[in-house]
Amino acid sequence: MAGKPVVAIQGERGSYSEEATRHLLGMKAELRCCERFEDVFQLTASQETQYCLIPIENSLSGSIHKNYDLLLRHHLRIAREINLQINHNLIVKVGTTFEEINTVFSHPVALDQCDTFFEQFPHLIKRSAYDTSGSVKRIVEENLRDCAAIAGKQAAEFYGGEVVMTDIQDDKENFTRFFLLSPEVEAGEKTNKTSVVFSFRNTPGALFKCISVFALRDIDLTKIESRPIRGRPWEYLFYLDFLGNIKEENTRKALDHLEELTEFLEVLGCYPRDVSQQRKGM
Amino acid sequence: MAGKPVVAIQGERGSYSEEATRHLLGMKAELRCCERFEDVFQLTASQETQYCLIPIENSLSGSIHKNYDLLLRHHLRIAREINLQINHNLIVKVGTTFEEINTVFSHPVALDQCDTFFEQFPHLIKRSAYDTSGSVKRIVEENLRDCAAIAGKQAAEFYGGEVVMTDIQDDKENFTRFFLLSPEVEAGEKTNKTSVVFSFRNTPGALFKCISVFALRDIDLTKIESRPIRGRPWEYLFYLDFLGNIKEENTRKALDHLEELTEFLEVLGCYPRDVSQQRKGM
Repeated sequence: MAGKPVVAIQGERGSYSEEATRHLLGMKAELRCCERFEDVFQLTASQETQYCLIPIENSLSGSIHKNYDLLLRHHLRIAREINLQINHNLIVKVGTTFEEINTVFSHPVALDQCDTFFEQFPHLIKRSAYDTSGSVKRIVEENLRDCAAIAGKQAAEFYGGEVVMTDIQDDKENFTRFFLLSPEVEAGEKTNKTSVVFSFRNTPGALFKCISVFALRDIDLTKIESRPIRGRPWEYLFYLDFLGNIKEENTRKALDHLEELTEFLEVLGCYPRDVSQQRKGM
Repeated sequence: MAGKPVVAIQGERGSYSEEATRHLLGMKAELRCCERFEDVFQLTASQETQYCLIPIENSLSGSIHKNYDLLLRHHLRIAREINLQINHNLIVKVGTTFEEINTVFSHPVALDQCDTFFEQFPHLIKRSAYDTSGSVKRIVEENLRDCAAIAGKQAAEFYGGEVVMTDIQDDKENFTRFFLLSPEVEAGEKTNKTSVVFSFRNTPGALFKCISVFALRDIDLTKIESRPIRGRPWEYLFYLDFLGNIKEENTRKALDHLEELTEFLEVLGCYPRDVSQQRKGM
């Protein structure tokens, strides 16, 4: 690998995932672009790539539940997190004017985040694509003169498209949280945030008891997410993020206590908290 | 309305939503079919229909988060819940043989729930549609001889399609929980389940305290779901279901206590628990 990390991402070059990867690993990182998240995880689980970078949560649309499920299935570990501000732009083939556009391609989540824009220009037809930057690539490469794509600025730069309108999302406070995953990660000294997943046999007060192991030790939770358990209708797995390093005694004791109360417990990672857009304790 | 309830549903006639509606309100109920959930909620909020029926959660794929968000936006109340067993079937135009099929239409969630089937027959192309029963309708009405749809048996009956393969879903334990919503509902004596939504200013231990109001009174939780709050990145709304009737003192006191701890609290409904596929306390 010789200092040149290889990272699997979903979507094409120029995507928000590439931007997040560059923030964490710099320009040297080599990317493997996949169409499906399953393939992204698979490449890293089979060690064909050293890392993968996946979105896990958006501050407007919520968790990417599919990736929570894949995280558990592939037993990858969280090495880093990053909160990236998302600014959507309307991008065209160079020379296309706004008046010529009748169709707009993008990922369905990006289209949804630009509702006000589409209400303002009701003649524009929305078309779902599997990726934001892939939509820019298509418009430029296929010379689609009456089409535009919604994507980040870096997609326009990468494919030589032209930004005709900036920041068209409804809400300026739009952040996506990404995880950098790897088959195995050693928790460093500076890590201060931990993610776990657990389940318990459903008995009254069980969730309360599980959360108490943190509250009793003044450990802040930052996120809780529940997902269904296959084959056990209406029972759930809980994904929990909290502020703490598993090398500290307080955190270790909380996890030992949690183990007493659960039938399944896995530490998904212990990593440095991204404080660039800080999440508060809950 | 003269005893003939009018109910808005998403999707076409013959859908799982229709089946759930028939279970709750019988054959007399008149249906208004909508393409989008937004329209389903809107019709009921504006009192053009007395009720709407929406899926809220599937035991395999999890919550339908969009509907949690719409529930809050439109201030509708939960009148009833129902857990419906989902059995997917492969349905064709009468006379089409399995060998002739090359394309299969359905809702993306239904396609995902039949992964094993598609692995077994890799030549079949999956095509997303907005609805299971609407896919059957299309195949029958447009006489698509090389296509099939994945949907419930009632869709085949309704449109005169033919079931060529039954129970093709990966997992037999496949249930969808539906809510019957109405602009205003009076909690009856026999109701024993309550749904609330709340938020709090993020302070350490806040979620623990909110859940303690139930644990301290031996009230069983059956579900917790978090959703992002717009404009406050990494803060969440919590949707909670628990066993209790708001007319009972114990439940009322728990909710009074919860109000002390939250900055926002709304009771979404108090309704009879569907015990046909029972969810346990947590």
